[in-house]
Amino acid sequence: MQQDPMTQLDDHFHDECGVFGVFDQSEAANLTYLGLYAQQHRGQESAGIVATDGEHFHSHRDMGLVGDVFTPEDIARLKGRSSIGHVRYSTSGESGLRNCQPFSYQYAHGGIAMCHNGNIVNAGALRRELEEAGSIFQSTSDTEVLIHLVARSQGVTTGERVGEAVMRLEGGFSLLVLTETKLLAIRDRHGLRPLSLGKLGNSWVVSSETCAFDLIGAELVRDVAPGEMVVIDGDGLHSYQLFAPDQSRFCVFEYIYFARPDSTIAGTNVYQARYNIGVELAKESPVEADFVMPVPDSGVPPAMGYAAAIGYPFELGMIRNHYVGRTFIEPRQSIRNFGVKLKLNANRALIEGKRVVLVDDSIVRGTTSRKIVEMVRAAGAAEVHLRISSPPTTNSCYYGIDTPESSELMANQMNVEEMRCAIGADSLAFVSLDGLYRAVGRPRCLHCDACFSGDYPVPVEIAPSPQLSLLRYFSRHSK
Amino acid sequence: MQQDPMTQLDDHFHDECGVFGVFDQSEAANLTYLGLYAQQHRGQESAGIVATDGEHFHSHRDMGLVGDVFTPEDIARLKGRSSIGHVRYSTSGESGLRNCQPFSYQYAHGGIAMCHNGNIVNAGALRRELEEAGSIFQSTSDTEVLIHLVARSQGVTTGERVGEAVMRLEGGFSLLVLTETKLLAIRDRHGLRPLSLGKLGNSWVVSSETCAFDLIGAELVRDVAPGEMVVIDGDGLHSYQLFAPDQSRFCVFEYIYFARPDSTIAGTNVYQARYNIGVELAKESPVEADFVMPVPDSGVPPAMGYAAAIGYPFELGMIRNHYVGRTFIEPRQSIRNFGVKLKLNANRALIEGKRVVLVDDSIVRGTTSRKIVEMVRAAGAAEVHLRISSPPTTNSCYYGIDTPESSELMANQMNVEEMRCAIGADSLAFVSLDGLYRAVGRPRCLHCDACFSGDYPVPVEIAPSPQLSLLRYFSRHSK
Amino acid sequence: MQQDPMTQLDDHFHDECGVFGVFDQSEAANLTYLGLYAQQHRGQESAGIVATDGEHFHSHRDMGLVGDVFTPEDIARLKGRSSIGHVRYSTSGESGLRNCQPFSYQYAHGGIAMCHNGNIVNAGALRRELEEAGSIFQSTSDTEVLIHLVARSQGVTTGERVGEAVMRLEGGFSLLVLTETKLLAIRDRHGLRPLSLGKLGNSWVVSSETCAFDLIGAELVRDVAPGEMVVIDGDGLHSYQLFAPDQSRFCVFEYIYFARPDSTIAGTNVYQARYNIGVELAKESPVEADFVMPVPDSGVPPAMGYAAAIGYPFELGMIRNHYVGRTFIEPRQSIRNFGVKLKLNANRALIEGKRVVLVDDSIVRGTTSRKIVEMVRAAGAAEVHLRISSPPTTNSCYYGIDTPESSELMANQMNVEEMRCAIGADSLAFVSLDGLYRAVGRPRCLHCDACFSGDYPVPVEIAPSPQLSLLRYFSRHSK
Amino acid sequence: MQQDPMTQLDDHFHDECGVFGVFDQSEAANLTYLGLYAQQHRGQESAGIVATDGEHFHSHRDMGLVGDVFTPEDIARLKGRSSIGHVRYSTSGESGLRNCQPFSYQYAHGGIAMCHNGNIVNAGALRRELEEAGSIFQSTSDTEVLIHLVARSQGVTTGERVGEAVMRLEGGFSLLVLTETKLLAIRDRHGLRPLSLGKLGNSWVVSSETCAFDLIGAELVRDVAPGEMVVIDGDGLHSYQLFAPDQSRFCVFEYIYFARPDSTIAGTNVYQARYNIGVELAKESPVEADFVMPVPDSGVPPAMGYAAAIGYPFELGMIRNHYVGRTFIEPRQSIRNFGVKLKLNANRALIEGKRVVLVDDSIVRGTTSRKIVEMVRAAGAAEVHLRISSPPTTNSCYYGIDTPESSELMANQMNVEEMRCAIGADSLAFVSLDGLYRAVGRPRCLHCDACFSGDYPVPVEIAPSPQLSLLRYFSRHSK
Repeated sequence: MQQDPMTQLDDHFHDECGVFGVFDQSEAANLTYLGLYAQQHRGQESAGIVATDGEHFHSHRDMGLVGDVFTPEDIARLKGRSSIGHVRYSTSGESGLRNCQPFSYQYAHGGIAMCHNGNIVNAGALRRELEEAGSIFQSTSDTEVLIHLVARSQGVTTGERVGEAVMRLEGGFSLLVLTETKLLAIRDRHGLRPLSLGKLGNSWVVSSETCAFDLIGAELVRDVAPGEMVVIDGDGLHSYQLFAPDQSRFCVFEYIYFARPDSTIAGTNVYQARYNIGVELAKESPVEADFVMPVPDSGVPPAMGYAAAIGYPFELGMIRNHYVGRTFIEPRQSIRNFGVKLKLNANRALIEGKRVVLVDDSIVRGTTSRKIVEMVRAAGAAEVHLRISSPPTTNSCYYGIDTPESSELMANQMNVEEMRCAIGADSLAFVSLDGLYRAVGRPRCLHCDACFSGDYPVPVEIAPSPQLSLLRYFSRHSK
Repeated sequence: MQQDPMTQLDDHFHDECGVFGVFDQSEAANLTYLGLYAQQHRGQESAGIVATDGEHFHSHRDMGLVGDVFTPEDIARLKGRSSIGHVRYSTSGESGLRNCQPFSYQYAHGGIAMCHNGNIVNAGALRRELEEAGSIFQSTSDTEVLIHLVARSQGVTTGERVGEAVMRLEGGFSLLVLTETKLLAIRDRHGLRPLSLGKLGNSWVVSSETCAFDLIGAELVRDVAPGEMVVIDGDGLHSYQLFAPDQSRFCVFEYIYFARPDSTIAGTNVYQARYNIGVELAKESPVEADFVMPVPDSGVPPAMGYAAAIGYPFELGMIRNHYVGRTFIEPRQSIRNFGVKLKLNANRALIEGKRVVLVDDSIVRGTTSRKIVEMVRAAGAAEVHLRISSPPTTNSCYYGIDTPESSELMANQMNVEEMRCAIGADSLAFVSLDGLYRAVGRPRCLHCDACFSGDYPVPVEIAPSPQLSLLRYFSRHSK
Repeated sequence: MQQDPMTQLDDHFHDECGVFGVFDQSEAANLTYLGLYAQQHRGQESAGIVATDGEHFHSHRDMGLVGDVFTPEDIARLKGRSSIGHVRYSTSGESGLRNCQPFSYQYAHGGIAMCHNGNIVNAGALRRELEEAGSIFQSTSDTEVLIHLVARSQGVTTGERVGEAVMRLEGGFSLLVLTETKLLAIRDRHGLRPLSLGKLGNSWVVSSETCAFDLIGAELVRDVAPGEMVVIDGDGLHSYQLFAPDQSRFCVFEYIYFARPDSTIAGTNVYQARYNIGVELAKESPVEADFVMPVPDSGVPPAMGYAAAIGYPFELGMIRNHYVGRTFIEPRQSIRNFGVKLKLNANRALIEGKRVVLVDDSIVRGTTSRKIVEMVRAAGAAEVHLRISSPPTTNSCYYGIDTPESSELMANQMNVEEMRCAIGADSLAFVSLDGLYRAVGRPRCLHCDACFSGDYPVPVEIAPSPQLSLLRYFSRHSK
Repeated sequence: MQQDPMTQLDDHFHDECGVFGVFDQSEAANLTYLGLYAQQHRGQESAGIVATDGEHFHSHRDMGLVGDVFTPEDIARLKGRSSIGHVRYSTSGESGLRNCQPFSYQYAHGGIAMCHNGNIVNAGALRRELEEAGSIFQSTSDTEVLIHLVARSQGVTTGERVGEAVMRLEGGFSLLVLTETKLLAIRDRHGLRPLSLGKLGNSWVVSSETCAFDLIGAELVRDVAPGEMVVIDGDGLHSYQLFAPDQSRFCVFEYIYFARPDSTIAGTNVYQARYNIGVELAKESPVEADFVMPVPDSGVPPAMGYAAAIGYPFELGMIRNHYVGRTFIEPRQSIRNFGVKLKLNANRALIEGKRVVLVDDSIVRGTTSRKIVEMVRAAGAAEVHLRISSPPTTNSCYYGIDTPESSELMANQMNVEEMRCAIGADSLAFVSLDGLYRAVGRPRCLHCDACFSGDYPVPVEIAPSPQLSLLRYFSRHSK
């Protein structure tokens, strides 16, 4: 398949997955569908739902967007009052139907289905150990490792077996497990990835983000705690703390880019956090200019905050093509900044002759930033001052985020002045780590900011490889 | 096919089509593809391109979005240095492949292809006349009527034949005609629908909107004048004024909602016009409030103008789901404002306890407005003041815009206070016609505002039916 | 699209179309679907049905097999008590959706739909005349020419208009016309192509072949006569003889290959005619051999006749792969007679060391015959005696049959001994023209055998081009 | 999904699978594709190929026919010089992509892929034992049980591990195993299902049937022996006898119906065996009649044998629709024997007033036989004498053949006279067991004829359920 020129543009870190579960509700699969629909931004490559009617498991998974993967007939076949679902951006190293979650298996204690958001850093070692003991693997997903651990556990209850297995895992993950009679929700010991508990009438729901609760009309009850395993069954909700009360190290990048602005994480609204980052940026890095404009859409809230704090007009100097989609057609002749223009168009009428502050959320490889600055200049800007609502991303992530190798990160190779020069901006500034946490309103110690600081809360198995692809045994196209 | 719950939401007038053409360029079809891609907002139901290599015509048309209708192989087969293309929202009364434009035919003088944006109000009468003379019709499109008139013309040149045919037409339309050796671009005598001329190197391009020129790197030269027929051939561009210099009556709603904000029409940038409408609205209808928030995305520029003019903060109190797509799956149980929530989510963290000014572009049937106000209140708003960046839409359009019957228009049945009450807002105000034209910066007499005023520049054939479906002879599903 | 290696194999003349119609029956579209299904052998490229409920016309047409083109939903939408349908192998020179029949149009007297099987040899001249008079053409189908003639007729009734138009046509065609209230069935003056009338209860049905009547349980009433126009309406069936009682010249090749063996044409059962040809062949060209084997499937009946007449065993020495379908995958390395082997496999166990008589229906280009003989030899045959159940095909057809240029016909370029040599058979013999007509049991003078004799009953417009493609104006891929 | 009326008709026992493998050949996947293509009659529900390049495994599997499942791009991605493939009719009890073979896994010793034709009767017990030991199962396929056994084996070489695993299996199966460096081919101890070894140049190939060798130009070397494990690697072919030289019990029904007529099994050509059965039938059960006609296509060889032996003409009294395919469209009104007529049409011209011997291969439930006899009578037959080229099928099969429950078998519930009466034939006769083996030409003791005799060579785990569905844990639609 040819590569979509659009994807070349999307120079961001990417969250890898979103999960959603519901227990004992009359239209479990339908609500799970909606819970995934609301979290589509967390993964567009595949989607899957497994439901149980207490006796059988029903599963539907495929490559594609939630709205394309499921027909009403598919949902109708997903019978039962409990279900879990998953959207995926791309898993560690491979894709394909073979790796679509949730996975469902039968083992000695009946059926079991699982899905997770995040990355298990010691999955490779565990897998080798399991293979030595005679386990066979069909996918490269960490989830398959986990199900083997559960199946080999001597625990008496599902909770004991899953708990015993999870305690062997290192990494950042939020995990859902479904059996005929139980729904389990587990967060890694540092709570690196989000996971919230809610109620819809008398039924429990779990979701990576709270925006899913809003869509289905559920109420947020609380976040699952770091290291907590919640077991929901016919007797209600039972909480188990699998790990000693370790320090929370929640991923701060969820506030900057991954989460939907209308979600609330650890009590902080994401939109407000982003707006506040703009305010901090204005305080830290003011500049003489005529107006402030965002790179749509993720740059909008910090641009608004920056404009409000500094007292300049906020303008939409770039217009986004709302019908932008997959396109494989490119002109043979050169059109300047063609790829960027498919998605964004600088409004010359507004920009010509003006000094603009351009606000974006992050700089990863820097290629898109350079093109956008060039496009704004081509539209007549007198000066282009770039402001970034995150600190420089100097390090790769190993906890479930799709990031390039560190060596591909512009901030890993250059200092800010070199970056400014390469991008072609008149000035360039990033929010500081301190400014970031002021904006979020919670202490730095509760967060992971390894991508900015290199301070990794969990040691990784093989240091130099980000999101290490433990196994490339089966090829990409495999089904 | 089940109905998409999303479409129920889209309570707007809709532009029916966009056109694009290029003459004598090495990658004509590719550029036409991009010209349509940039104008996807003008029509999402079907897309088509006809190209000519000077000897044969090559055509590809299908239902769907531009990016889905054309594969690289399709584009490669559209050989030739000149081509025209079309996107359609839905034509008068019917849809289906049979009505996809451009149409291409062979007649006594060779091949001819045509497409248009707009509506020919005397198409029914002309069609009856042609049928009496032995013409046969395969579609219900006005374009087919026009091609018959051209084929029956005794004119010597293509220009004469097309000109003679066009002079018999009444209505609002922008028309492109392609022959083996010529590209013609014609605008109705009042210039109701937009059409601009541009240059890409030495090649002429024509487009409904200038945003298409930006994408392919072409320069805007000028708008085609009302009543003008431009003939482009190997000798260059020739202009003919088909009608006595009548008064321009350009559709003002293009500034309010139809056009892309980065397009420029008659010298006025659309984004700035919308921002200015917000400023006028703030002057005309101020209100005590805590902040201003738009209904995304069309409400954003006027909301920014309103906020800047009145001095309140501008906030994104509603978040749009960027991955919203077609979905046919609805929960069986009632979820309040479900349809609206699929697309928009009110951010409780921001809204709770606040008095908000909510800015939207228009109220058509009023059903969505009521749901949105209700959703904002459910998110805790203390007061909701609705401001609309157009005057009340009291009348249907007959010139190529998809509008409900007048009797379905809320503003046709109620006064503003009754509308406020029905919608459930604490206050409701529309921009005045005067304010609208101050914002646009051009005199009212050059525009058509029949949808607000009932002042129709062209008499319509059968008064009571908007966008009259002259013929429903062939059923919807026909191919 | 890559070429299917299978199609290279199919070295036959091909019938171009089949038609079916039903008048005033409660499930008209459904029966038309079945009528086309039974006649799929007459055309596999496209299928279409138009039905009328007396007020509107409903149409569904697409590329593909009948079973793929129509879903139950499609059939349900084809409302009405009368309908006509069409399957097509490929039209004169072009394909594509644009040329799918039936065509439906509106004209001064309401709606009209048409489809035909065959070829109108003066279509080019008529078309040029119509274009001069201002007609426009969207397809290259002869049917479009005819509808224009009907629309321009001054006749008072549909029958008068259609009759007047048909009288201008030269060629071989069977034509169905549907209006809101009538079904017309017309056969050219020589009755070159088949068309039969049947009754299903009180409803009239028409079909290219009688096997369609068998499937739906209808009774054969009679064949439509050469030059007859049958008009079926609420008052019953009315017959008009459009042409002076000219000589019948029915296509004898229908008996040899085109028609289904279980069809009956002019009172002769096709299977029996084929069997009898084998008997005649045995009498005319006996040979010493161990057994007789057919090239499946069309060679089976004459092989049975040959074997029975000469008294040798009849054996299935070649096995046909029943699941053979479209395949684009070929081995890179050479496999002898690969293309033939995908479809047929010679059974060594039976053939080894034996002298075999191999019976096939015709030799067109001769390429496949050579491969088949080679394959039989490779399976160990001691001698291979090829017997052909048609005379040598020396001339192209201009009356609706897909044939190569005469110069590509092996029998046009070589005598029988040269052909035997090229094909590599030990002996080669064709049935004689006399033997053929003895087998069919009807006098030669009532038939067209131009492909064997060069005696064309209707002069063709442009002599040297078989199935002349009057117009290649619109390219293949056009929709 | 609605049910295809065609499938109701197909009242046969069905072979469940076909396998093909090639070792060390430059276009392994392509040849495997062709090997499956030639064996499509053994399974139409799904197809799959796994290839290895010595390092990675590449897999492609999907529901559908071979020609639809694989594109040239798919084949190109299946890199490597060795591969195995599989077609499936339907596995024990379930279908769906989850059960498509070959399966490929990674385990402690690298990658391993497997596929089999047949059924492992003790799979349920082995599965429960493996689950107790901590194994997890994603499918219901017996193959997954086998791979777990291999993974848990302590054997040093692949051969030791696979051999140790296979020795625990009971049932009828032919199995292929692929590793990075080896291809293994194993047949159960009784050799119930076929498996042949061939050579293509210097490369080994294995196939369920020899017709696959013919297509690719390979030579048959020998059948794999009952209980033999063949290991092919870089050093050549190594043979291991896994079981004491037990009695061969090859499935005699392969000769009657399953295998392609051009295949040769145990030295007997299938077509000749079928012809001979007809001869035996004529000797055992002659009858006064005018001619002999088959139920196409499987009834053709025995009908030819019957006709030749008794000296009556052989006629094709029923014509098969060659384009018959999936159709979901049925008439609302009753058409007699509609389902049968979609596929077969009795030729009245031949049958009317005649006494016919009708030859079919088997009677399973008897429903189709009744309809066919009725159709032949409706076409005017004076007498219909039904002759069946197999003994009465009184018992279900447990060794990889899709059969109904014994209680659904007509011959299990009725004697021959009762069957004749229910079917409505004038006489009915089956070939005797002795006649069958005379026709095959090999002693009965080397065969399994449990479906006729109830003499099962391998005891089945749970007696009363044919092709027992050990597990219906995951639902049909699961992916």
